[in-house]
Amino acid sequence: MKIIDNIKTIKKQIKRLKKEGKTIGFVPTMGYLHDGHLSLIRQSKKETDITVVSIFVNPAQFAPSEDLDKYPRDLKRDCSLLEQEGVDILFFPDSKEIYPEGYDTYVFVENLSKPLCGKTRPTHFRGVTTIVLKLFNIVSPDRAFFGQKDAQQAIIIKRMILDLNLDLNLRVLPIVREKDGLAMSSRNKYLKEEERKQAVGLFKSLTKGKEVFDSGIKDVKTIKEEVLKVFKEFPLLKLDYLEVVDMNSLKKIDKVEKKALMAIAAFLGKTRLIDNVILGGDNEDICS
Amino acid sequence: MKIIDNIKTIKKQIKRLKKEGKTIGFVPTMGYLHDGHLSLIRQSKKETDITVVSIFVNPAQFAPSEDLDKYPRDLKRDCSLLEQEGVDILFFPDSKEIYPEGYDTYVFVENLSKPLCGKTRPTHFRGVTTIVLKLFNIVSPDRAFFGQKDAQQAIIIKRMILDLNLDLNLRVLPIVREKDGLAMSSRNKYLKEEERKQAVGLFKSLTKGKEVFDSGIKDVKTIKEEVLKVFKEFPLLKLDYLEVVDMNSLKKIDKVEKKALMAIAAFLGKTRLIDNVILGGDNEDICS
Repeated sequence: MKIIDNIKTIKKQIKRLKKEGKTIGFVPTMGYLHDGHLSLIRQSKKETDITVVSIFVNPAQFAPSEDLDKYPRDLKRDCSLLEQEGVDILFFPDSKEIYPEGYDTYVFVENLSKPLCGKTRPTHFRGVTTIVLKLFNIVSPDRAFFGQKDAQQAIIIKRMILDLNLDLNLRVLPIVREKDGLAMSSRNKYLKEEERKQAVGLFKSLTKGKEVFDSGIKDVKTIKEEVLKVFKEFPLLKLDYLEVVDMNSLKKIDKVEKKALMAIAAFLGKTRLIDNVILGGDNEDICS
Repeated sequence: MKIIDNIKTIKKQIKRLKKEGKTIGFVPTMGYLHDGHLSLIRQSKKETDITVVSIFVNPAQFAPSEDLDKYPRDLKRDCSLLEQEGVDILFFPDSKEIYPEGYDTYVFVENLSKPLCGKTRPTHFRGVTTIVLKLFNIVSPDRAFFGQKDAQQAIIIKRMILDLNLDLNLRVLPIVREKDGLAMSSRNKYLKEEERKQAVGLFKSLTKGKEVFDSGIKDVKTIKEEVLKVFKEFPLLKLDYLEVVDMNSLKKIDKVEKKALMAIAAFLGKTRLIDNVILGGDNEDICS
């Protein structure tokens, strides 16, 4: 695996590979890799000739009050995992390479960035779309792989690709979960023992919602009430939001008449966790 | 000349031309072409294999109170001029092609968009950078040609190209002027006879400023005073701004110690005109 820390070099490499007719798969990450990331990498290996992974803890998507400094990092372990998976190129730039002096340009997807996580994290998605567009321009992937765990992020990136006329195939893969159902996340590392036990409450609550929906109840208010009954069995969880929204517009709906996203966010102490489930559709088709 | 109105077709054409090894030059315009535009096209013809011109009056860069609806249009005349110049492709999309239903993505260059024209037109440059990035993604030019008349625009686009890691050579060409010195602009058409006579006041004022600077005076306050003395000889002109700023940061300076931009904007009735001159440098090197 080649490890490249600067933009000029990776652009040159990619250009050469494209000239040889190779297709490029790209998995952008913030490192501290788990099986969710690895599932994206494995899919990229299946679908493209060359798999590029980036590790960059992107300051622009953290608010000043958030966990940028303590975000978990372990490059040595990440590299060994990436080698095992047969990744071709790791792009590992520092902040100065990505945001040089005088940096001044931002990309945002206006309305899709407002609801759900956007309420608690108003500048987060602007940071995400900015870094993702930059990485797309640097890596020029034919396909990019994202996880459904960050469903709003995936839907926003899908919109950005469409709106900015990018030639790029977006693939969104299902959430990978721990044995008890907790969605894998680098931030799970923050959880203390008792918090970790109760973290499964997000998944348990959503599962209840899906059961209720599958039993024939389409009314969102009723579904949410059932979800919250389960949620309250986990007293350490503090609800940030629970919403059922349209898959394209992210607007709240009253009744589930077509595929919809049920998304939840909750705090466990200082740690904020998110999870989601798709009602009325296969979990794999979030962006299809 | 091929006239193409949809994104899919032009992307396909460009892809084919690039495969043949052709370089692409791009001149984005809002139509109603004048000799300023033609100078960009001629330069593109000199420097690249294929010249693409776009005509799109971009709603996103007009405020609701501005002149979107009355902006001058004459496609037939434009086409005949483009044919004469030997342009290869005219891209002429409508608004729905560029901003389809649900469109939600914007690009902005934060600090550079605030001063000068940004004060009077706070959403203008966000519209410019958004359409220019989209057009760059659609046309994939090797070189793009802009006029120095819109100096702030050129400096913002230069920043965007750098910040978003675009592979693109930006060329900014000198202002083309009418015989009396008025900078060519499609908006000059709005001017009534007496307004047209006094419009030259912008150029005359800036010329005085350059003379004062060239005589050895570096103090911006003194230079501006001399400029305004000339400006006041044209009573129909209402000053919007007169500033001397750093060429990269667009920040105001007190003393001209290296190349600087002296920019002016003024109203003549409802028509807003801009002009600029570079102090301490060749007019051709605004973005070098």
